[in-house]
Amino acid sequence: MSDNALKEILNPRSIAIFGASNNPLKMGSIHLLNLLTSNYKGKIYPVHPREREIFGIKAYPSVSELPEAVDLAMIVLPTHLVAQFMEELGKKGVKRAIVISAGFKEIGEQGAQLQERLIQIARQYGMRFIGPNCIGVINTAIGLNTTFFRYSHHPGRVGLASQSGTYVTQILPYLERHGIGYSKAISLGNEADIDLVDALSYLADDDQTYAIGLYIEAIRRGREFLEVAREAVLKKPIVALYVGGTEAGKRAGKSHTAAMAGPDLLYDGVFKQAGIIRAPDVQSLFDWTWALACQPPLKGPNIAILSNSGGPATSMADAAIKWGLKVPEFPPELTREIAQLIPHTGSPQNPIDITFEMDFTAFAAKIPALLLAKDYIDGLVIYGLFGSSFQESVFSAARHIVKLDLSYLEKISQAAFEQFIQIPPKYGKPVVAAALVGREDDFVRGLQDNNIPCYLTPERAISAMSVLYKYYLIKNKFTKRTALKGTNAIYH
Amino acid sequence: MSDNALKEILNPRSIAIFGASNNPLKMGSIHLLNLLTSNYKGKIYPVHPREREIFGIKAYPSVSELPEAVDLAMIVLPTHLVAQFMEELGKKGVKRAIVISAGFKEIGEQGAQLQERLIQIARQYGMRFIGPNCIGVINTAIGLNTTFFRYSHHPGRVGLASQSGTYVTQILPYLERHGIGYSKAISLGNEADIDLVDALSYLADDDQTYAIGLYIEAIRRGREFLEVAREAVLKKPIVALYVGGTEAGKRAGKSHTAAMAGPDLLYDGVFKQAGIIRAPDVQSLFDWTWALACQPPLKGPNIAILSNSGGPATSMADAAIKWGLKVPEFPPELTREIAQLIPHTGSPQNPIDITFEMDFTAFAAKIPALLLAKDYIDGLVIYGLFGSSFQESVFSAARHIVKLDLSYLEKISQAAFEQFIQIPPKYGKPVVAAALVGREDDFVRGLQDNNIPCYLTPERAISAMSVLYKYYLIKNKFTKRTALKGTNAIYH
Repeated sequence: MSDNALKEILNPRSIAIFGASNNPLKMGSIHLLNLLTSNYKGKIYPVHPREREIFGIKAYPSVSELPEAVDLAMIVLPTHLVAQFMEELGKKGVKRAIVISAGFKEIGEQGAQLQERLIQIARQYGMRFIGPNCIGVINTAIGLNTTFFRYSHHPGRVGLASQSGTYVTQILPYLERHGIGYSKAISLGNEADIDLVDALSYLADDDQTYAIGLYIEAIRRGREFLEVAREAVLKKPIVALYVGGTEAGKRAGKSHTAAMAGPDLLYDGVFKQAGIIRAPDVQSLFDWTWALACQPPLKGPNIAILSNSGGPATSMADAAIKWGLKVPEFPPELTREIAQLIPHTGSPQNPIDITFEMDFTAFAAKIPALLLAKDYIDGLVIYGLFGSSFQESVFSAARHIVKLDLSYLEKISQAAFEQFIQIPPKYGKPVVAAALVGREDDFVRGLQDNNIPCYLTPERAISAMSVLYKYYLIKNKFTKRTALKGTNAIYH
Repeated sequence: MSDNALKEILNPRSIAIFGASNNPLKMGSIHLLNLLTSNYKGKIYPVHPREREIFGIKAYPSVSELPEAVDLAMIVLPTHLVAQFMEELGKKGVKRAIVISAGFKEIGEQGAQLQERLIQIARQYGMRFIGPNCIGVINTAIGLNTTFFRYSHHPGRVGLASQSGTYVTQILPYLERHGIGYSKAISLGNEADIDLVDALSYLADDDQTYAIGLYIEAIRRGREFLEVAREAVLKKPIVALYVGGTEAGKRAGKSHTAAMAGPDLLYDGVFKQAGIIRAPDVQSLFDWTWALACQPPLKGPNIAILSNSGGPATSMADAAIKWGLKVPEFPPELTREIAQLIPHTGSPQNPIDITFEMDFTAFAAKIPALLLAKDYIDGLVIYGLFGSSFQESVFSAARHIVKLDLSYLEKISQAAFEQFIQIPPKYGKPVVAAALVGREDDFVRGLQDNNIPCYLTPERAISAMSVLYKYYLIKNKFTKRTALKGTNAIYH
């Protein structure tokens, strides 16, 4: 896919931006300010009819006076001005654009005509563009963020193609808070030119992207989508949230991005044929893509559950069965080994409840290693690995009354963490965690930053683990099909 | 239920605690320290064979030397000492206890015998107790917290009865972070004496509790549970998470709290007959109980959806249908009115997308009031009410480059907030919000603290709204049944 038009859009050496001024509250200005304060190292040229400088950098009065045919144009102009500037850009030799401006096909017939005009201009000059009515792209590998929301988290492994700008922008604080990082994110808007299929194809080939998330209101090129997805899924997992399958969703999608959606069952079929895992909501879309991007597939349904508490142990065991996994009973020799490491009030059977009065080294290192070494255990879900927030919740009261030096507890927690993160890579089996606390806890933050997804509730961890198994089955199935196709097409 | 034994346990004038010492890292000490730093105003008597003072307050060498027969005894002693102290307490005339110590029926035959002994002692002396193997209770009305986790949030409306201590303790930071407050929380442990039925009955009669959440591994008294629940549900909604329905869940529950669970389908039937809404996971348990505790029932399936962005509008519309709600098309006169308040790039049809370039007063006040006044709209779900976090995400970049005084934006946001929170109570219809940001945002925090649940994803808000409809239907059904029973029992 070396000819994918998104390649230049996500890796521009120079950007011209239209619609920014020295008024920092205008949309275009916010996009520019965000670009200027990101880590993007390429050249940035604001274009404005009157301003000579915008936020301290030189502005250019017109397209023709730009010093070069930039790699990318970002257009945040009023609707009626877009076509004119697209044409000037075409004449200048600019080949890529992001049209952020809205008011096109999504608002009805008049907008549809304007959108048609953009397509014609692009064809005439050999331009390719995203939008209109989109929010642009993020490429964390080069610090590029054309949106108006700050990207604060470190670069990640999740690639997103979205027919909603919100799930590229307003979602950023949510993702940061959950420890999820984007590799690339692409807001597609009305898809007048570049569409979901292009984005999927791009992300499939992107080395920084380990799993792909799709937010879909409608697929405009069904056959091509299926073809591209079936190849992509051999390389990396794909999770899709489709919201156009009900009458209300369809109506909303139409006025949002002019999408013509189809019934849920049809899309179910498409996703199944494509090897795409369907998410029921935004939360699952990101929970699942995150796990798939960070952890290896689960090569069998048998998981071990390890918890510092009976409630989550029980919830997780029950949820595992409901999510299609198995929680096999351990053979007596293993329960005996575990029993020696936990208090007598705990349970050494699967799910293991080591109870709250625990030996942190047993919990975080010895037992996980013991479990992952067994060939009848395919993966591990662990509840209760937390440090600083626990000390805060449990000992802050104490500190009012007694002088309590908790630094040795911090050391124990830190040592346990160091031991724990060595373990998963050793066994090549997936490990997923849950904690009821987020990144405010140092242990949780450490897990997440070391590619061990840690979720806010026990069941979310289980559902993520179940998806690691789903992808294993999908990949197997599609690999066999492809092999079959290669050897004897007649049976395919 | 004036004879409910939990009344004194949740409202003790005096507490004796066993197992605390001057070592602040011992379990009993942490319980005591937490109690001492809570807002509880009653008397606290530590009992210890050798210490004369514990954390600065007088300690008593034995039960017999306690200055009074306390209202409540908290026992955090090693397993083998519990029976002996229970007996001494009985002799002293103490009538209520919380047995936090574990190592009883949940660990097998030997523990079961010890537990039986506790029951006999209690019967002999007319004592009632929670536990063993529990974590105690929280009563935010009087600042009582017998657990070892800090309760930092303000008193709330959610009452919880739980067969897991974790969902009373380790869940606290999670609840605080989500803006959810407990009225009362009761950890039941092994239920040797006081059980789920007692707790449900207590919470049903508790004025501070507006909705009841249940975490269940097994129901030990089925018939009584059903009777109590059917009466309770006429007063307030009940949501239950049951995790004992699979083989793995059953096994885990048995080793956790010695529970003998039954199949999922059986419990489905019990919940249906009892008018209890069944939650699939911990997240839903609290999301739903929260909404039910804060908002009135949804008296019809027709909701309006209002969003600052097309993606969430579409996701919510689609989710609403899947959750059994309706997103009716607005009549032309309403869309015309709305169209005048939003940009031309927005959509004035249900779901309304007012787009990001919005008039905050229209979004937060005019349109909500317009919608809730219509008799064909039963409730409102709104996405995008946020303030400080948005300014942070969008303008923090700008502040590096330009001096930007955002105080006027804060004022607009604050004014919009003040207008918005006046609206829902006026119409008596439920309003639920979603934001992708949490309490770090001032607007979100304000919503939550004014009893408008605000969820982290669009679909969670929709599912909460659907439960407000479910409870409306349940209450109607049960009220009719009760009326029927009163007038003509023969048809019942």
